[in-house]
Amino acid sequence: MTEICYDVAHLGHVEIFTDKYDESLDFFVNVYGLTLSGEDENSAYLRAWDDYEYHTLKLTKHHTTGVGHIAYRVASPEALERRVAVIEASEYEVLGWVDGDDGHGRAFRFKDPFNHIFELYWDTVKYQAPEAEKPALKNVAQRYHGRGCCPRRLDHLNLLSADITEFKKFMITCLGSRVTEEIQLDNGRIGGSWFTVNNKTYDLACTEEHAGGEGRFHHITYATDTREDILKAADIFLENGVHIETGPHKHAIQGTFFLYVWEPAGNRVELANSGARLILQPDWETVVWTETDRKKGQAWGLKTIETFHTHGTPPVKNH
Amino acid sequence: MTEICYDVAHLGHVEIFTDKYDESLDFFVNVYGLTLSGEDENSAYLRAWDDYEYHTLKLTKHHTTGVGHIAYRVASPEALERRVAVIEASEYEVLGWVDGDDGHGRAFRFKDPFNHIFELYWDTVKYQAPEAEKPALKNVAQRYHGRGCCPRRLDHLNLLSADITEFKKFMITCLGSRVTEEIQLDNGRIGGSWFTVNNKTYDLACTEEHAGGEGRFHHITYATDTREDILKAADIFLENGVHIETGPHKHAIQGTFFLYVWEPAGNRVELANSGARLILQPDWETVVWTETDRKKGQAWGLKTIETFHTHGTPPVKNH
Amino acid sequence: MTEICYDVAHLGHVEIFTDKYDESLDFFVNVYGLTLSGEDENSAYLRAWDDYEYHTLKLTKHHTTGVGHIAYRVASPEALERRVAVIEASEYEVLGWVDGDDGHGRAFRFKDPFNHIFELYWDTVKYQAPEAEKPALKNVAQRYHGRGCCPRRLDHLNLLSADITEFKKFMITCLGSRVTEEIQLDNGRIGGSWFTVNNKTYDLACTEEHAGGEGRFHHITYATDTREDILKAADIFLENGVHIETGPHKHAIQGTFFLYVWEPAGNRVELANSGARLILQPDWETVVWTETDRKKGQAWGLKTIETFHTHGTPPVKNH
Amino acid sequence: MTEICYDVAHLGHVEIFTDKYDESLDFFVNVYGLTLSGEDENSAYLRAWDDYEYHTLKLTKHHTTGVGHIAYRVASPEALERRVAVIEASEYEVLGWVDGDDGHGRAFRFKDPFNHIFELYWDTVKYQAPEAEKPALKNVAQRYHGRGCCPRRLDHLNLLSADITEFKKFMITCLGSRVTEEIQLDNGRIGGSWFTVNNKTYDLACTEEHAGGEGRFHHITYATDTREDILKAADIFLENGVHIETGPHKHAIQGTFFLYVWEPAGNRVELANSGARLILQPDWETVVWTETDRKKGQAWGLKTIETFHTHGTPPVKNH
Repeated sequence: MTEICYDVAHLGHVEIFTDKYDESLDFFVNVYGLTLSGEDENSAYLRAWDDYEYHTLKLTKHHTTGVGHIAYRVASPEALERRVAVIEASEYEVLGWVDGDDGHGRAFRFKDPFNHIFELYWDTVKYQAPEAEKPALKNVAQRYHGRGCCPRRLDHLNLLSADITEFKKFMITCLGSRVTEEIQLDNGRIGGSWFTVNNKTYDLACTEEHAGGEGRFHHITYATDTREDILKAADIFLENGVHIETGPHKHAIQGTFFLYVWEPAGNRVELANSGARLILQPDWETVVWTETDRKKGQAWGLKTIETFHTHGTPPVKNH
Repeated sequence: MTEICYDVAHLGHVEIFTDKYDESLDFFVNVYGLTLSGEDENSAYLRAWDDYEYHTLKLTKHHTTGVGHIAYRVASPEALERRVAVIEASEYEVLGWVDGDDGHGRAFRFKDPFNHIFELYWDTVKYQAPEAEKPALKNVAQRYHGRGCCPRRLDHLNLLSADITEFKKFMITCLGSRVTEEIQLDNGRIGGSWFTVNNKTYDLACTEEHAGGEGRFHHITYATDTREDILKAADIFLENGVHIETGPHKHAIQGTFFLYVWEPAGNRVELANSGARLILQPDWETVVWTETDRKKGQAWGLKTIETFHTHGTPPVKNH
Repeated sequence: MTEICYDVAHLGHVEIFTDKYDESLDFFVNVYGLTLSGEDENSAYLRAWDDYEYHTLKLTKHHTTGVGHIAYRVASPEALERRVAVIEASEYEVLGWVDGDDGHGRAFRFKDPFNHIFELYWDTVKYQAPEAEKPALKNVAQRYHGRGCCPRRLDHLNLLSADITEFKKFMITCLGSRVTEEIQLDNGRIGGSWFTVNNKTYDLACTEEHAGGEGRFHHITYATDTREDILKAADIFLENGVHIETGPHKHAIQGTFFLYVWEPAGNRVELANSGARLILQPDWETVVWTETDRKKGQAWGLKTIETFHTHGTPPVKNH
Repeated sequence: MTEICYDVAHLGHVEIFTDKYDESLDFFVNVYGLTLSGEDENSAYLRAWDDYEYHTLKLTKHHTTGVGHIAYRVASPEALERRVAVIEASEYEVLGWVDGDDGHGRAFRFKDPFNHIFELYWDTVKYQAPEAEKPALKNVAQRYHGRGCCPRRLDHLNLLSADITEFKKFMITCLGSRVTEEIQLDNGRIGGSWFTVNNKTYDLACTEEHAGGEGRFHHITYATDTREDILKAADIFLENGVHIETGPHKHAIQGTFFLYVWEPAGNRVELANSGARLILQPDWETVVWTETDRKKGQAWGLKTIETFHTHGTPPVKNH
């Protein structure tokens, strides 16, 4: 445990591409229950009711689906400098500084070896609730509006890559992430790793790409306050004709209560609840799951659904 | 936000005095639902099912009640050295190194200005679940045993002191704590402050002593995974003749869902759930509650019960 | 237990008066989460998402507040005839047949000794969900819309009367109700009785009028599927500026988890959950609560709030 | 809706055979969370904490598994006479009066065409809580003990038979049951029917026997107060090595939230929660599910697990 791993404060936002912008936007606002902070020509900026920044989801019109970029907020201006120096000195592709989106200031961009774009930023735009959204209690960002599934905050995302060991090196070097849990396959490869930069159990997971694609996206997840919220959400998804892929159930890995659906353009979206679980332990040792462990299914025995291993965005041709 | 505030990893354990040891121990094991790791001549060492250390509660036979000492675990051996240097250079009373209890290695002790004993330690004893307590899932410390209220982990404690401004200075200097929320009284005094050293919303609160006592204790709290756990706990307390002081309800401050009871010796004990709320924001600004805010009662309007302002342990004579 | 008590199937609907019709209607639709089936010149017809009839709440413009009439649906046309014969032979005031509202056919009206109007009916209008409200599952009346507090079905109402013993005689004679629980005061009077015509624990309660009013109303209640729904509702009420009178908490009597608010015109409205509790026992004996019992407060010790004993609608002058 | 259907008050108890008596009894008491009322040479008498009778489950030592007999309590002594007259006049095999078990008085026994034994009784033994089990609130049968999954009351059972149409005739004739929901297969057969004698959505289900057995048993179910209870139960089953067959999930049919496990001898046992759903409607029309409906899986899309169609008790040879 060195100071370096504390330079990055938290996952800030994720940009998702959609080729059905209107339907996707309607889904995220009215069914999933995010709030629209603003829109520009190509993108909508969305957030959950207790996210403190202008946006945690940037939804962008595109010819296809998948992930645009992944942004982490650092712990201080100095931490940003330290991180940039480390990344510039590393083997990873640097894209350099960008001006920042509607929701934040300048950001430093770089790529993982599998073509996902990451960025780090400090300057941000804090959400200023308009009158109608002002909360009754001053310690939350926005009133609890109760619209749709109404998750509380951004939780994590899941990427796909061809080599988790390589991806892991990237995350540790560039973000100072800790690996809280991972899958060790019998063939010696790592099947998936779960990363965190803070006390959350994970803010990013990466699992093996089985379809030959590159730079692909598995899912994005917002956190609910309770598991009951997720059971209610299942009814809301059902009633709104949303494809429920799997869940609600409890993951063995990380113990998260989960529900996965596909938003109208096909990107996988999760709602999750971790209960009171946190990784407070400074010398946490990575929990390693074997193939034998995995054959037991999810925590309560649910078999992992086939599409969970194959469906990513954008879709891969000939798969 | 400087590195220094990250030296301390988390609240480690709290020592509680009881003058009804057998009854208190029975309460904590069979009603509250902690697990006994071990016992020595004067103390029982207890933990919640997902606490990773040997103990998070040391229950000690004593001629009175209240708090023995408060222990935080640091982030690394180097962090311990840094913290000790800071504390030794401070105005606060140093008690020096102690050998450590059954559950951890040597610890550095010091006092706040109101006579509460704190300690910092790095070397710890991680809980090794005996066969009967081994969990089905390898990422939790112990099986979910389901006995009593069965909270998941230690959450926080609440002390009383005559001058919160002084206490706050102590917490910031010695532990590098952040103040996430506080009460600003009309008379210019601070009525209470909520502190954290990590992403939890608070790990220690200090509220004003109104009874003239010194070094007194308000309550200790363990976290449950859900609010429903707390509703069930209310029935369990009711059926076991435990004095329910107030709740279940939701605090305005911190938004915590709470339930307060008195263990057999009179120490106040809470169960709490914060939902998915975390303080991930590195530049979090202290939320300040005024007396006007406080007059609205708890989040949903419950008036704060009188004993909540007066009852602390040990009891103060002539009050 | 005789067949006669089975003539009446269930509480059908309640008519509530409001002198703030627009605000009350907005509350019931957008905050409380009922669905508007239709409106005529003076009234709105509302129902919860799984109520099978056209309406369970008739909200009527009026110069004051309180209850208009209370309607029970009978078990069959023959049961209606039997009930009418019994009532006509009784001492109670008969108002005779009315044509029926928008939501049902002809109804037989009569009065309790305290000036509340009751009616019995068989012919009803079953809710036909328009396309946008059709459920995904064919065994519920309407899709789970998730708007506002979104209770599932009408549960019960509470009236006030000066003499519960007299009121009880009326309910047993006219509706064949069973008394499942009641309060026996030290002065020999009955403080309140809880009635049911079916396996629900109660569909109507009557408690003592302490303000000298007549024909007054205490509250109407809809049932939620879970207690968590009620905790969420508390946040929804809070955020919408609704006066939360008391709760969430658990009643000692009937064990119901409750939350009481006042709708904009001042009528008291409850959300409640009884868990899996039903009165299936054919020879159930009335549970009698004494004043000593009552002094313990609600199930988990909450003291009953003063307005709960005094606030009824319409308001009584000089009280 | 005629009076006749009200003669039978509720499902009273079910006798289950086990060839691993000690293990089964340990499961039902310590894991599932029933309370042992008493034991005789061959059987244990068990009940949930709010069941008002001496027992709702009779667990009997046997050379195999499956169901011994199914008992319903009638609404009155007169109702028992009426029912006996109807059954004696019917085509069904009468076994006649038996003396009654430890938990009730004389009972009238008869058989369905598929060799399941039913009985009706009026005289019963109400549970008298011993001192240690007396509840804090006088309207429940026993204190909420919190041991194991701790369901509240017996809910229903599920039998298998070769011809559901025949079985249905039996249930309507002998018990006056209503059919609340059923499955209509494309081949013209009924795949399953759900019955009730009161306002519960069902107290007995019968689904098609696909393994050629006779008189077989599918599962018995107890009701929990909340869905969260069932999520907790899943962890309790997991930690105790109990085979979780499927769930937690929500049934499309009846909308019940469910979890199925196998007790040590192989009998299937469910925990279920119906929320606030009741069948209060006197003219309820059977909800009919087609094969097309069924192909959508359970409410949120879970595919029905293969063993659910094949596993019944006792096991059928050569299957």
